[in-house]
Amino acid sequence: MNAPVDIKLYMEDIGRRARAAARLVARADTATKNRALAAMAAAVRRDTAALLAANAADVAAARAAGKDAAFVDRLTLTQTSIDAMARGLDQVAALADPVGQVSEVRERPTGIKVGRMRVPLGVIGIIYESRPNVTADAAALCLKSGNATILRGGSESIRSNRAVADCVHEGLRAAGLPADAVQVVDTPDRAAVGELLRMNQYVDIIVPRGGKGLISRVMAESRIPMIKHLDGVCHVYIDERADPERAIRIADNAKTQRYGTCNAMEALLVHEAIASRVLPPLARIFLDKGVELRCDAASLAIVRAQAGNSPLVKAATEQDFGTEYLAPILSVVVVASLDAAMEHIAKYGSQHTDAIVTDDPERAQRFLREVDSSSVMVNASTRFADGFEYGLGAEIGISTDKLHARGPVGLEGLTSQKFVVFGTGQIRT
Amino acid sequence: MNAPVDIKLYMEDIGRRARAAARLVARADTATKNRALAAMAAAVRRDTAALLAANAADVAAARAAGKDAAFVDRLTLTQTSIDAMARGLDQVAALADPVGQVSEVRERPTGIKVGRMRVPLGVIGIIYESRPNVTADAAALCLKSGNATILRGGSESIRSNRAVADCVHEGLRAAGLPADAVQVVDTPDRAAVGELLRMNQYVDIIVPRGGKGLISRVMAESRIPMIKHLDGVCHVYIDERADPERAIRIADNAKTQRYGTCNAMEALLVHEAIASRVLPPLARIFLDKGVELRCDAASLAIVRAQAGNSPLVKAATEQDFGTEYLAPILSVVVVASLDAAMEHIAKYGSQHTDAIVTDDPERAQRFLREVDSSSVMVNASTRFADGFEYGLGAEIGISTDKLHARGPVGLEGLTSQKFVVFGTGQIRT
Repeated sequence: MNAPVDIKLYMEDIGRRARAAARLVARADTATKNRALAAMAAAVRRDTAALLAANAADVAAARAAGKDAAFVDRLTLTQTSIDAMARGLDQVAALADPVGQVSEVRERPTGIKVGRMRVPLGVIGIIYESRPNVTADAAALCLKSGNATILRGGSESIRSNRAVADCVHEGLRAAGLPADAVQVVDTPDRAAVGELLRMNQYVDIIVPRGGKGLISRVMAESRIPMIKHLDGVCHVYIDERADPERAIRIADNAKTQRYGTCNAMEALLVHEAIASRVLPPLARIFLDKGVELRCDAASLAIVRAQAGNSPLVKAATEQDFGTEYLAPILSVVVVASLDAAMEHIAKYGSQHTDAIVTDDPERAQRFLREVDSSSVMVNASTRFADGFEYGLGAEIGISTDKLHARGPVGLEGLTSQKFVVFGTGQIRT
Repeated sequence: MNAPVDIKLYMEDIGRRARAAARLVARADTATKNRALAAMAAAVRRDTAALLAANAADVAAARAAGKDAAFVDRLTLTQTSIDAMARGLDQVAALADPVGQVSEVRERPTGIKVGRMRVPLGVIGIIYESRPNVTADAAALCLKSGNATILRGGSESIRSNRAVADCVHEGLRAAGLPADAVQVVDTPDRAAVGELLRMNQYVDIIVPRGGKGLISRVMAESRIPMIKHLDGVCHVYIDERADPERAIRIADNAKTQRYGTCNAMEALLVHEAIASRVLPPLARIFLDKGVELRCDAASLAIVRAQAGNSPLVKAATEQDFGTEYLAPILSVVVVASLDAAMEHIAKYGSQHTDAIVTDDPERAQRFLREVDSSSVMVNASTRFADGFEYGLGAEIGISTDKLHARGPVGLEGLTSQKFVVFGTGQIRT
């Protein structure tokens, strides 16, 4: 499609159609939705060659436009990633359908029975960057949770997204569901995003998936509620009552298993009573793996004693403590108490994921209750903060907001609960 | 207090103090919070004379300023309403404490145990109009749910609110909790509301309690999430399979038990196959009670045949259907089917509360699932949409939004759930 003349009218039309489709998808039964997902997966598998061809054109254009290697990597589809896309659709089909579940039914003194019913949110807008697999993933999760979706991917992946959308639409039609249940915004005009962010009469929730720049923009422009996280400044606190080996294993894993993820540790806090035991071996591990250590005064003394004049050991500045490095860099702080650790996390953390290593159940309990993050852990690596690891089956994103959904958001986070009342003619007196 | 020179600095100071107090209140145990609530109730009872005197000054000023009788009525405290205020504090103390409840704990194949813990939202801003009892009610609910509160009542009730706040602060101090846990914005400067609505670094959620003008303003100005409902355009649909007597009883109650409440019926939808049976007796009831009926063509014919030339019977205009009258006025529509009824509700309703009267379980189920309102009812009066009637114990408001809380919002709606992970040294591989 060519860019429409009036982007506002174009987006309004998409919004209106999404709203109409949402009512039909909301009432679709589980078998129908699963049939659509299976047909989508079959179409993706059958059309692998076409998907690869469309993607190759996107990749060539991105290269020609001088996009960097990381960008091209995120954009590129392979046989393996297309297989994974199809498998993902099948996996969502296998998940339990939250829609229509009734819980907490209680009879009241008046004789009415009051319960909660899980229902779709309505229309979900997904704004993402270059990864074409988001098109299938997000469509599947939104459909299974009974919502209509408006997908706005990066303009560099438009050919790939169109090809994936063809498979999605084929699946919807095969199950007798409206194609408008999943719409791809098919214009490179960036004003389309602005329109989407303002269509609160048509869009119930926005899920921005991408880097900080994208999420900041969406936050600044939108008044529609969002499922988003901006930063993952995750902490591991090694308590004085920690098992040292366990502490070392968890801190190592939380930092080095993958550097670029939002649930990787960015700051290590160590109780002063255990610092001289755990910091030297940890420093050796981190330095051997090429992790730069930015240390406060107390930890610097200990680490320097171990590492000598390694150029990877530096004094931390105040700014380091709130920084999400997403890289082999770690800030290290020695604290005088559990309270000081929690104070540090409250001041510099991003309410994403924080962990304590301790054998003291009371300290663990205090940390769990008082650290105000979407995931709080005892004796486990922060890297577990993930929808699959938590058993949600899949995730549309991770929320560090406090309302509605916190932490990894799966199907349930794409629904809400309304009250249902069952009476036999009761009136209020 | 006199109006501060710089309202922005004044509000920022309140925000900072609320944020600091929120961490202390979040970790307070149930017994401490209940002790504070009991001490507040005792102070209110002891200070009844002082509360009445402060309120009398507010009332005199409001009268002198020419406020109307309804306004003065909402503003006025009496011995009875002060007793009710104290009783309300005791009732909140008696409610179960949601904070810290852990649920849905499941062991994952990796060995970690993943659950959800209910935690406070943080800082709650309450913006209300002239009712001084909101000061105590809202403070109690927010405290019990572990949140700090910033209260901004109408400037006409400032003396009353100060007197109530004195009792609240006395209760907090008696339990060793910080007085900043409940702060009253003590300036008549209306700019304070604007500042409060923009302090998203300090305020986690805004609850506007008042008329449409207030809520519209808050919606227009704030980017902080809100618990609010704008309109209560509630429907009762009498299905062709309804028991006529039950239908008449419910429709009568939903409209006439109280006219001015958000859960009162504003539009009656009647299936054409039962219209000639239920509309004539209903018209007689409504007209006897002085309810003006604004009818579509089909219902007008039936009602006119019953009521003759009553001036209370009129032809409805398109505008009537989306109108929240909050008055003895009702729009009446004959529909051809359940689908037509749900279509009407989707088009004109406000997603507040809608009810079906039917003996057909399949139609009831379709209505429950497909009507996208915060409360959906079968064979019961819409007037039941209320936190007390639902067994929540008390309500901070009713939400017609879709995220987080829908319908009456009690203690649980002032909390959210974070993920908690219990490990024994697990790392991700």
